[in-house]
Amino acid sequence: MQELIDRIQKDGRVYPGNILKVDSFLNHQIDPILLDHIGEEFFRIFQHEGITKILTIESSGIAIACFAAKYFDVPLLFAKKTKSINLSDDNYIASVDSYTKKTTYQVFVSKDYLRKTDRVLILDDFLANGCAALGLIDICEQAFAQIAGVGICIEKEFQHGGEKIRGKGIRLESLAVIQDMKDGQITFKNQL
Amino acid sequence: MQELIDRIQKDGRVYPGNILKVDSFLNHQIDPILLDHIGEEFFRIFQHEGITKILTIESSGIAIACFAAKYFDVPLLFAKKTKSINLSDDNYIASVDSYTKKTTYQVFVSKDYLRKTDRVLILDDFLANGCAALGLIDICEQAFAQIAGVGICIEKEFQHGGEKIRGKGIRLESLAVIQDMKDGQITFKNQL
Repeated sequence: MQELIDRIQKDGRVYPGNILKVDSFLNHQIDPILLDHIGEEFFRIFQHEGITKILTIESSGIAIACFAAKYFDVPLLFAKKTKSINLSDDNYIASVDSYTKKTTYQVFVSKDYLRKTDRVLILDDFLANGCAALGLIDICEQAFAQIAGVGICIEKEFQHGGEKIRGKGIRLESLAVIQDMKDGQITFKNQL
Repeated sequence: MQELIDRIQKDGRVYPGNILKVDSFLNHQIDPILLDHIGEEFFRIFQHEGITKILTIESSGIAIACFAAKYFDVPLLFAKKTKSINLSDDNYIASVDSYTKKTTYQVFVSKDYLRKTDRVLILDDFLANGCAALGLIDICEQAFAQIAGVGICIEKEFQHGGEKIRGKGIRLESLAVIQDMKDGQITFKNQL
């Protein structure tokens, strides 16, 4: 998605450890016009997949998923993070390793809102090593819900999360794919 | 806002300790059509206030603020929660007591995204004792930003957060005001 790539090139900042900061428009301050266009783009890509629910993870996935959910006219469900595993049986729970925070946390979703009759589109802002998306996939599998696909705003291809998801036979579509970020220079896949 | 009141009456659940659960449509699973209407209603109320930025708090404020931000055509900024106070000087920081979680946490906003030239609309899903909103007000004051108003989806009037905010001379508008929840029965203000 050229609009997103242009914005990353204009406003993204690269930090040591392959960290890309896009917090001026995507995950701290949010540009609602860009995110509405992102939601529309996910709808264009997945509109024929019979989506009944959009699943994301707090916090930075919520804004992206909101606008997409409106285009699909389906509910959005966001997995909540917690450090405690003292959760009731009313929830599906998965473990997620955080790349940026170097920690493991639990995510959960109420069993009330995810059913085996659901056909789910998983959305998130970033895909790096894939742990967050794999946690959401795990939750869908626990609910016996069908996974229609995974939509990502920014995939860091060199961190191999994409391979893990495609390796499970799941459709993955990323709006901007970064091939490397050597010396603070961002190289997008289709620009090579 | 009658649409929101109707939905609370239909799908809200009251738990001991004056807890109102609306997680089937507002803060776990989200109905994007209702939230879009809520965003439009906040725009109707505050459109002449010269808003330049919408400020909310993760996670459940984000969805509400997203749709409103699109109507206002201004950026949305969400304060992040953290347990550690080991934050850089690049952030405005405030303390917030959580009513439901019986704990205190820090919230922060990057100084890059809130300026004294900003005229801010603070939005959130709930107003109970007012601690989250007061934390966001504190952050605006640190940035010398003007506070145009506070918009709340559900105000629990009997927990007195509204008095604290109005007592500071700040315009507060709540779309649904609950006067009491005795015996699991929700009584809205304009229904008495």
